[in-house]
Amino acid sequence: MLEKLKAAVCQANLDLVAEGLVIQTWGNASGIDRERGLVAIKPSGVPYDGMKTEHMVIVSLADGEIVEGNLKPSSDTPTHLELYRAFPKIGGVAHTHSLYATAWAQAKRKIPSYGTTQADYWFGDVPCTRAMTPREIKTDYEKNTGAVIIEAFKKLNPMEHPAVLVASHGPFTWGKTPSDAVHNASVLEFVARLASETLRINPKTLPMQPVLLDKHFLRKHGANAYYGQK
Amino acid sequence: MLEKLKAAVCQANLDLVAEGLVIQTWGNASGIDRERGLVAIKPSGVPYDGMKTEHMVIVSLADGEIVEGNLKPSSDTPTHLELYRAFPKIGGVAHTHSLYATAWAQAKRKIPSYGTTQADYWFGDVPCTRAMTPREIKTDYEKNTGAVIIEAFKKLNPMEHPAVLVASHGPFTWGKTPSDAVHNASVLEFVARLASETLRINPKTLPMQPVLLDKHFLRKHGANAYYGQK
Amino acid sequence: MLEKLKAAVCQANLDLVAEGLVIQTWGNASGIDRERGLVAIKPSGVPYDGMKTEHMVIVSLADGEIVEGNLKPSSDTPTHLELYRAFPKIGGVAHTHSLYATAWAQAKRKIPSYGTTQADYWFGDVPCTRAMTPREIKTDYEKNTGAVIIEAFKKLNPMEHPAVLVASHGPFTWGKTPSDAVHNASVLEFVARLASETLRINPKTLPMQPVLLDKHFLRKHGANAYYGQK
Amino acid sequence: MLEKLKAAVCQANLDLVAEGLVIQTWGNASGIDRERGLVAIKPSGVPYDGMKTEHMVIVSLADGEIVEGNLKPSSDTPTHLELYRAFPKIGGVAHTHSLYATAWAQAKRKIPSYGTTQADYWFGDVPCTRAMTPREIKTDYEKNTGAVIIEAFKKLNPMEHPAVLVASHGPFTWGKTPSDAVHNASVLEFVARLASETLRINPKTLPMQPVLLDKHFLRKHGANAYYGQK
Repeated sequence: MLEKLKAAVCQANLDLVAEGLVIQTWGNASGIDRERGLVAIKPSGVPYDGMKTEHMVIVSLADGEIVEGNLKPSSDTPTHLELYRAFPKIGGVAHTHSLYATAWAQAKRKIPSYGTTQADYWFGDVPCTRAMTPREIKTDYEKNTGAVIIEAFKKLNPMEHPAVLVASHGPFTWGKTPSDAVHNASVLEFVARLASETLRINPKTLPMQPVLLDKHFLRKHGANAYYGQK
Repeated sequence: MLEKLKAAVCQANLDLVAEGLVIQTWGNASGIDRERGLVAIKPSGVPYDGMKTEHMVIVSLADGEIVEGNLKPSSDTPTHLELYRAFPKIGGVAHTHSLYATAWAQAKRKIPSYGTTQADYWFGDVPCTRAMTPREIKTDYEKNTGAVIIEAFKKLNPMEHPAVLVASHGPFTWGKTPSDAVHNASVLEFVARLASETLRINPKTLPMQPVLLDKHFLRKHGANAYYGQK
Repeated sequence: MLEKLKAAVCQANLDLVAEGLVIQTWGNASGIDRERGLVAIKPSGVPYDGMKTEHMVIVSLADGEIVEGNLKPSSDTPTHLELYRAFPKIGGVAHTHSLYATAWAQAKRKIPSYGTTQADYWFGDVPCTRAMTPREIKTDYEKNTGAVIIEAFKKLNPMEHPAVLVASHGPFTWGKTPSDAVHNASVLEFVARLASETLRINPKTLPMQPVLLDKHFLRKHGANAYYGQK
Repeated sequence: MLEKLKAAVCQANLDLVAEGLVIQTWGNASGIDRERGLVAIKPSGVPYDGMKTEHMVIVSLADGEIVEGNLKPSSDTPTHLELYRAFPKIGGVAHTHSLYATAWAQAKRKIPSYGTTQADYWFGDVPCTRAMTPREIKTDYEKNTGAVIIEAFKKLNPMEHPAVLVASHGPFTWGKTPSDAVHNASVLEFVARLASETLRINPKTLPMQPVLLDKHFLRKHGANAYYGQK
């Protein structure tokens, strides 16, 4: 079932490796069929080499139960499901331990908007979650990882900030499709590296002017966007 | 029309990608036919993969109107036109978000001349523009981006400083031809990275001696240049 | 003799190069046959290009004497032997001068556990040895290098911390097999780089919460591990 | 004439590019025939792509006059000649603007010996020249560049420190042959990068213990060397 979705999710997982965002087995991507309430996701701890569409696991959005597949789904599945439940417009989620974004997550810092490269994709900062409590870590850890992400988006539109840094862990990104989520993971990694390189030149660099941030985000994403072809 | 120029501009855009200076669609190159007052430039937001000569757009230097082409020209076209108007000797312009040059632009710092690598190409610093005013950003943003660049060159010869950093944005470079502009974008990226690595060893590094700067720039570019073959 | 072990050791040495962990001849990997008390190791100072199984040298675990092979074994052989003697569960050892791990060794600093990437492999820090005394350096230097490593593991389980930084020198890693030792060398290099990038964003970054460290290490390695397939 | 030497010099120049030490035309390598007092060197400002043995220029060690070749020799030729005159045991010289070594040169800092990687090749620091005087720059600049290098080696054996950083410029390396000089340029670049990464972890890192430096240099290069095969 859901062959097209599974193929897209498989391709998204392979693209994470091809783009240098995932080494070893440290990452996963998923996609959702909103009508049926089903999510396709990578199996847990399986090497990317030789990964095929039929290895993808289908789980239920409602309760996380396996609906199809012989392998265990990614151990991060409960986090993906929380995101799909809270952010109704997203169609794909990706998680990596990519170098520069993970460094920001380990430093427990949001990435400020230092320039137009970031402003073309994020309507401001890339947020970072708060530290989880011992209770949240010991019980339902992966589900609670989703919960602290959602908490960080109380006042933010996830479609205007398509990424988050989970403190002491690494980034999650999302988009309209699994491939969109991978694209945002790739842009996030570049933006994170760019922010690091900026701080090294001047550790006291201030964020860009809000008016310039608005200009760049809205010329690409707003109602009056004029970037790209119609 | 202008098939040769369009081919050169298309190649320059592809070279930006091949040299690792442009990822995604974040960059553009153009070239000018001074006699006819026409500029060939990359279309806006179009993937580099599969980009061909016939996709290039021809616009008028005088008013920016499209003279040939079915696609919208790069959203940065008004910036390119301002540069062609103000710097009469340049024949090509390139814009990238290359990592190290963009980091200096985000740090809002000019790149000091720390050594002979830079002095072989720039007769001193790589300048950085001032912050734009809200008014300049809200109306005619791309044209005003050109204006602040030109303002930064009041006392500089653009042929002796073939690049600029636009604050909170990224670099623009130029040269006698589109391929020359790409070459300078590539050298700028190396020089920016070299300056970053220098500062990390000694954050208080002083610029090189002016007499050594003169020696290197002039042995390559001056009337008595003796570098290279005749 | 021990053709299978020699082949595995040869492959492990070639993999160190393929993974970018070893340049020039700066590295070596070995493997042990515990039943026979024999160790297969790379010959000393031989180029990787053209290295074959038959070049591997077999030495005795008991006294380090050459049992088979026409070439001199790696000058680091006595260090490998000390590790096999002290850590009875390891089956392979690797030594590299990989960039980021060696930088931490040169800075004479243990790598703190800043996030879950490290916690998935190390149950805490990557330890660093103390400086060796002049006497330890002048006599039996390579054997004493093993001794200071073992000293650093007085209170640590080597299977839960499969790597060490030798101060002013570089990393040694180990595992159940030679290929496992190489895998850990590769993970160590990523983890070392990640820690460096973290410190550059915030030089005062604190290690992760112990409860999160426990959670990640034990969900992958503990009795109740649930990461990966069964 | 000197076909074998010219071929070796051509190959050395191409290897500088292949090893990522030279971009654009920013580098050169040479070799000497001590018996005839002749030096073969790269032509000035010629692209590496398509460079062949017959393009190499032969100049006289005594006076720098061109003995064979249709192209102008590298503008750095007088520096090479000074080194051959002062260091009678060297057979090849290489000059690059490789990123990390050049950053140290621009920071005007010698590279301290932070670990055994450097100690395997340098019997201590990689020295850095003093700033040149305006007079030295204005007249016979390239020859005087050689003179300040030689001045930095008053108390050093060039065979035990096969590289130098020319302040505000970049590295020169040498060895018994042109290919040896390239090898040392490659090792220098790694060692420079390693030192930079070390300082970033701990800016106050002290050099390694002299006794450990002696041990590593001498186990590889001394009369009682035991590294490698006999």
